[in-house]
Amino acid sequence: MPLSPTLELAMDLIQRPSVTPADAGCQALMMSRLAPLGFRDEHMRFGDTDNLWARKGQDGPVLAFAGHTDVVPTGPEKNWAHPPFEPVIENGYLYGRGAADMKGSLAAFVTACERFVANHPNHRGSIALLITSDEEGPAKDGTVKVVEALEARNEKMDWCLIGEPSSTHQVGDVIKNGRRGSLHGYLTVHGTQGHVAYPHLAENPVHKVAPALDNLANEFWDNGNDFFPPTTFQITRIESGTGSNVIPGECLVHFNFRYCTENTAESLEERVVAILDRHRLKYDLQWHLSGRPFLTDKGALVSAAQSAIRTVTGRETELSTSGGTSDGRFIAPTGAQVVELGPLNATIHKVDECVNAEDLDTLSDIYEQILIELLA
Amino acid sequence: MPLSPTLELAMDLIQRPSVTPADAGCQALMMSRLAPLGFRDEHMRFGDTDNLWARKGQDGPVLAFAGHTDVVPTGPEKNWAHPPFEPVIENGYLYGRGAADMKGSLAAFVTACERFVANHPNHRGSIALLITSDEEGPAKDGTVKVVEALEARNEKMDWCLIGEPSSTHQVGDVIKNGRRGSLHGYLTVHGTQGHVAYPHLAENPVHKVAPALDNLANEFWDNGNDFFPPTTFQITRIESGTGSNVIPGECLVHFNFRYCTENTAESLEERVVAILDRHRLKYDLQWHLSGRPFLTDKGALVSAAQSAIRTVTGRETELSTSGGTSDGRFIAPTGAQVVELGPLNATIHKVDECVNAEDLDTLSDIYEQILIELLA
Repeated sequence: MPLSPTLELAMDLIQRPSVTPADAGCQALMMSRLAPLGFRDEHMRFGDTDNLWARKGQDGPVLAFAGHTDVVPTGPEKNWAHPPFEPVIENGYLYGRGAADMKGSLAAFVTACERFVANHPNHRGSIALLITSDEEGPAKDGTVKVVEALEARNEKMDWCLIGEPSSTHQVGDVIKNGRRGSLHGYLTVHGTQGHVAYPHLAENPVHKVAPALDNLANEFWDNGNDFFPPTTFQITRIESGTGSNVIPGECLVHFNFRYCTENTAESLEERVVAILDRHRLKYDLQWHLSGRPFLTDKGALVSAAQSAIRTVTGRETELSTSGGTSDGRFIAPTGAQVVELGPLNATIHKVDECVNAEDLDTLSDIYEQILIELLA
Repeated sequence: MPLSPTLELAMDLIQRPSVTPADAGCQALMMSRLAPLGFRDEHMRFGDTDNLWARKGQDGPVLAFAGHTDVVPTGPEKNWAHPPFEPVIENGYLYGRGAADMKGSLAAFVTACERFVANHPNHRGSIALLITSDEEGPAKDGTVKVVEALEARNEKMDWCLIGEPSSTHQVGDVIKNGRRGSLHGYLTVHGTQGHVAYPHLAENPVHKVAPALDNLANEFWDNGNDFFPPTTFQITRIESGTGSNVIPGECLVHFNFRYCTENTAESLEERVVAILDRHRLKYDLQWHLSGRPFLTDKGALVSAAQSAIRTVTGRETELSTSGGTSDGRFIAPTGAQVVELGPLNATIHKVDECVNAEDLDTLSDIYEQILIELLA
């Protein structure tokens, strides 16, 4: 049986070992398919990151597909039953690094555009692709920079469809219509170093911080709401120690909030400071706001995605805001509606990453149907 | 003014840069003074450590002087106003690494022996010196090994005078007649690693251990007693962390007890386990008993030391068991009475370590007087 165009393109992309921040020619391969359809290519390189902004059409509304060509490292290749950059279809599954996250989605959207443009040469609005090669890495020179460039020239996306693997059991069963915010805290608690034999001459910062950490870990932050699960707090690092007979002088604590719209970064920062002060700690505290929460409530994009999934698969779709951050955090603040819709996420970042081969064709049909709903 | 024999020998010892485990010829220099008095030299080398067991006499009782020729590192020599291995006397103070800890004491005891033997050629019992070059380091191949060798051949010390700097404001104002025990605990708390975005799938070991550490830090262990200050608990190290968005799977905690005779290593271990179990932690716990507490209560050695200090300086002496461990922990279990008596400890281990020059002559007189009280 010959391969479908989507599977063929997906395998072609997987063959390119584009571990972050490498693109390894994936964006050029995609453009070789999009250019004949009338997409204009704008290559934006920032630092070591290749970004592609490709657009077909001058007018609004703009439906953009966002994604990334980079993949996470493979780990020791000997642990893979199928070499990570030699894609193969076995028992109905396509194996290879990036099969699910997210070269399969890239291929599905390109072939969806091919069919949609062939059938609707005079569609309304514009179709665009915003593709980066550092989504899996520091995410400093990728989507965030492209969005800045577009904003600077007032080029807007109305709808943004992100190809991240959102599905849980069957393709299309879950789409993400928002994400929690992510706030990092970097705490240094100061004590007084000294010899363990003379504790009255020292002040142990680990002893001082322990009850404060217990408070933070057990604090009730909020209950979540209709769209978001409750805010969570997690300590990700703690480090203190000078020598086996030395009371340390400092204790470092790193922590992270995943927070919903019942709190803000500012309200969480205030509450942490209040808890630390209640414990009379001497400390420095730095914050890094990795992304504010965003939510795409009812609207044209969510409706189109739900309708397209129903049309293609007969499935009702669950809206979810759970899970990690995505590049949607950079796009949503521009005012665009943002939805993530992609294949099953069961094997992402693991060895022998794979995706059901038929699911990619189904996904391509869903993407095409969304284009029809919004731009036909 | 010519230097006293004690100061001259102390400066000769300080010139030898015997940073642990180096002896740098110090023990040979001491023997060159002791051999003419009738001391027999037994050199015991274990690993990288030079040890000297020198004894004059065959019979009991045995009064041993214990000490070390090694010194702690200097740190950057540019921070020293007086180069650490170029001893100099300025404004009445002898400067150099080891001046106070404890080459001054070594010199004082050697010259005390010279005068005592000259005046009491037929003294009773034996005089011995147990000198190591790794007291300041791991203390694995030093005093502990010499004591094992002596015990193996049933050679006993009755009284052990340790030259550690015990004095606080004036030479002889404090002697140490015991030390607290030191017990190290190495705790690993097990959780379940996971992504910070999915805390319900993980278990954060830092969150779990925080309240237990708070309990341990605030536990009442005991009140001390007439001889010892209360037992203290200090966390010396804590370490956990895998990545900025990862809930760690393990948390390491190292801690140390300095404990008095109101507890035992076993009772403390039991109480720690009970606290950890009350918090339902999953953990591994290793123990290292660095030294049990020891106490030399009233007896011939304490009386001789108090009397000698009174005779030479007119001072009354305070008995103390505070401070860090010393090699006395290895000697006391043999049944010997152990007392530490040396110069002021204000500058030990610091830059520009120094000792009052006259104090070394006074100390030598005190040591001589102790020899007279016990062996004349």
